[in-house]
Amino acid sequence: MVKIAFGSCGDSFSATSIKAYLAEFIATLLFVFAGVGSAIAYGKLTSDAALDPTGLVAVAIAHAFALFVGVSIAANISGGHLNPAVTFGLAVGGNITILTGIFYWVAQLLGATVACLLLKFVTGGKDVPTHGVAAGMSEIEGVVFEIVITFALVYTVYATAADPKKGSLGTIAPIAIGFIVGANILAAGPFSGGSMNPARSFGPAVAAGDFSGNWVYWVGPLIGGGLAGLIYGDVFIASSSYEQVV
Amino acid sequence: MVKIAFGSCGDSFSATSIKAYLAEFIATLLFVFAGVGSAIAYGKLTSDAALDPTGLVAVAIAHAFALFVGVSIAANISGGHLNPAVTFGLAVGGNITILTGIFYWVAQLLGATVACLLLKFVTGGKDVPTHGVAAGMSEIEGVVFEIVITFALVYTVYATAADPKKGSLGTIAPIAIGFIVGANILAAGPFSGGSMNPARSFGPAVAAGDFSGNWVYWVGPLIGGGLAGLIYGDVFIASSSYEQVV
Amino acid sequence: MVKIAFGSCGDSFSATSIKAYLAEFIATLLFVFAGVGSAIAYGKLTSDAALDPTGLVAVAIAHAFALFVGVSIAANISGGHLNPAVTFGLAVGGNITILTGIFYWVAQLLGATVACLLLKFVTGGKDVPTHGVAAGMSEIEGVVFEIVITFALVYTVYATAADPKKGSLGTIAPIAIGFIVGANILAAGPFSGGSMNPARSFGPAVAAGDFSGNWVYWVGPLIGGGLAGLIYGDVFIASSSYEQVV
Amino acid sequence: MVKIAFGSCGDSFSATSIKAYLAEFIATLLFVFAGVGSAIAYGKLTSDAALDPTGLVAVAIAHAFALFVGVSIAANISGGHLNPAVTFGLAVGGNITILTGIFYWVAQLLGATVACLLLKFVTGGKDVPTHGVAAGMSEIEGVVFEIVITFALVYTVYATAADPKKGSLGTIAPIAIGFIVGANILAAGPFSGGSMNPARSFGPAVAAGDFSGNWVYWVGPLIGGGLAGLIYGDVFIASSSYEQVV
Repeated sequence: MVKIAFGSCGDSFSATSIKAYLAEFIATLLFVFAGVGSAIAYGKLTSDAALDPTGLVAVAIAHAFALFVGVSIAANISGGHLNPAVTFGLAVGGNITILTGIFYWVAQLLGATVACLLLKFVTGGKDVPTHGVAAGMSEIEGVVFEIVITFALVYTVYATAADPKKGSLGTIAPIAIGFIVGANILAAGPFSGGSMNPARSFGPAVAAGDFSGNWVYWVGPLIGGGLAGLIYGDVFIASSSYEQVV
Repeated sequence: MVKIAFGSCGDSFSATSIKAYLAEFIATLLFVFAGVGSAIAYGKLTSDAALDPTGLVAVAIAHAFALFVGVSIAANISGGHLNPAVTFGLAVGGNITILTGIFYWVAQLLGATVACLLLKFVTGGKDVPTHGVAAGMSEIEGVVFEIVITFALVYTVYATAADPKKGSLGTIAPIAIGFIVGANILAAGPFSGGSMNPARSFGPAVAAGDFSGNWVYWVGPLIGGGLAGLIYGDVFIASSSYEQVV
Repeated sequence: MVKIAFGSCGDSFSATSIKAYLAEFIATLLFVFAGVGSAIAYGKLTSDAALDPTGLVAVAIAHAFALFVGVSIAANISGGHLNPAVTFGLAVGGNITILTGIFYWVAQLLGATVACLLLKFVTGGKDVPTHGVAAGMSEIEGVVFEIVITFALVYTVYATAADPKKGSLGTIAPIAIGFIVGANILAAGPFSGGSMNPARSFGPAVAAGDFSGNWVYWVGPLIGGGLAGLIYGDVFIASSSYEQVV
Repeated sequence: MVKIAFGSCGDSFSATSIKAYLAEFIATLLFVFAGVGSAIAYGKLTSDAALDPTGLVAVAIAHAFALFVGVSIAANISGGHLNPAVTFGLAVGGNITILTGIFYWVAQLLGATVACLLLKFVTGGKDVPTHGVAAGMSEIEGVVFEIVITFALVYTVYATAADPKKGSLGTIAPIAIGFIVGANILAAGPFSGGSMNPARSFGPAVAAGDFSGNWVYWVGPLIGGGLAGLIYGDVFIASSSYEQVV
């Protein structure tokens, strides 16, 4: 059952909401800066050799640590989404209104874009690597890969942060949210790239001026995140009273 | 002293129990997807070279992070076992009834199997690597290796999650449970493979259609998990009133 | 709005303050010893080969783990700054007086220096590597890189530790503070070096007797930390009553 | 000021004390099994090549994760020492009686020894690597290295676990204790080996029948641990009423 919340427009323009958009912008910027930056750093150290297992570990740890922190620093202000798929998954469960969700998306996409433009400057003009499905794989395989791993991410957000019955799990929720992304990158990196986040893929596409295949990282994550919202919301929260996330 | 709980059959079919089986299925699926996926990813990046220390680190971190998260997302619903050896070890201590435990096993084995079939699809048909004792080792050495490391895992579940006197340790229990598996894979990986979990070994065996040596990963983990239940339950909980786990 | 706190001089010389300086000295010493030590260890294992991705992972993890612990062991006594840029960022938000902040700086710089001199001794006289902007980059790019990543660090200190509304985030604050440094080193290591901390750069400069380019690691971190104090303090704390940090 | 506690002999033989010795034995066994096992695994994967940075990362992570878990699973029963230097450092601060401390030592040394003998069996008779100061270093440098890093470890035990004023830091204390060992191994591994723990060095020496240089890993850690007890106990706890650790 999809629960769409239509809040009054005023709510989306309150001082509290504006602060939430700013918190999403800053946290997404800092997460994408470290995450994409680690991929550029790997390229520099290896003269742009193809990804190897060491590079995969470096990039996975950078994303895990940075997303954990990014969620932490926005948690009390905006809920710490940093990801349009998370915002969508929470909207499906009725935890955020459509209008507020749209402003979250704008903040997240802007944050990721500014991060990538900053990276281009501070690395002396290095190329910003974009997400793409690996050679030899079909895009449908890439979409399904992103569906499964984004489902894992948004399901984790629900179980550890959005569920009113989360208890002491709430204390370690940001670590869990960051680390499931790290684990999934270790699996998906050489196949779909392991985005789980349309903003994480959008920023580099803007900086590189290359949107080829970018739709994969919208369709996959939004389906995966939406499914997590449907299943967790309907089966495990299973109550008409939703608490605001985090 | 083995404490076997015979609950009424009705308990195992309540709405709460069905949700627990679903939570175990989903969490095991997501854990095995990331864990086995990281092994397939290593194979892709190295053109299926033999495991090296970098690959061992990548696989160990993926399992540690993914099991931590898998336990977290099921903890409040099913107790977060994700592993027939954990369920068995808790049954030995009287923390779960036999019938419910059997349904947990089914959910865990199904979750692991679906994860491996999904991996086969999203990686474009890559082989799913199965557990096996290393060349030059006897299977009895492999069994003993798995006994020791699964004892460590289930003992950790008892001390941090199932013990009514756990206190604030309960907050970090999922991290401890995930990380002992990561540490043990770093030791056992090149010898027994470091499964500690019959479901983790069963799923790849189904996907690969190869059950040779699979018994090692049932006998070792179940003995290790059962011993942990006996020792922790009798010596350290040492009381007739058991609390439901987590 | 910059809030400068002018405490009475007596406060900065109380027994509690002296203990805080000692706690900063010890914690900074232990953090820098492990962090810089990991860079020396990499050099020894590779006969001083250039940094590669494995070395970057090793150094990033050492800093992440050691800073997490360093912040933890000083948190209850001094607030756990270990970094002149953190102290400055907190002073900008009015969380520490100028005079006490100066003593913190002295304790941090002394701790980092003693750590590097100890390292020189226990490694049998190995060179202590200093921070420097990578060949081919301008120093202004290095400064901006350090501004962004230090902003991330001090913003994290504010959101998880100094904000009176931090709630249960305070429990994992030291982990977040350590891990954002680990993530940022994975991005910045091959470019600006990823210092985020004038003391971390000062100690090696003293031990090596080489201050060339050291100004980058004062200007960048202090601007980044100050900006974080301005933005977080004015927008998100937004209240006239500041709580003492941690 | 050294505070030596002389409890009545009866206390050291109570059922609670016997359980504490057993908990120390099991937790030390499981920690040393994973830690030393990771070093043997590295040797197997590389045909006993010399340690390289990847191996150092693998060994450091195995020790960090396994010590974190080892401390967790014993924390509520024995305080989670797993290390004669920790027990000694806590005895210096009056947190444990001499007689109980001696039994802790016996349990720790036995646990480490059984772990290494088990490893010899399950790996098909692989050599168990012992700690030793690197070629080209003097033993005095090794001792001082071990003093500094064990000081860091025991100081962390005091600040996060033994200090009655630890507050919410107690929740993450086992993680901090494990991770400072991981960070210090990344620095000390190629020099002194990074033991910080006489039991961790004793077990492999028994299994290998080689005690050459073993004294370094008694003298260094005991001096470092004792100093931490003196400084933290006198300066930061600074009160006549000591709480039992953890």
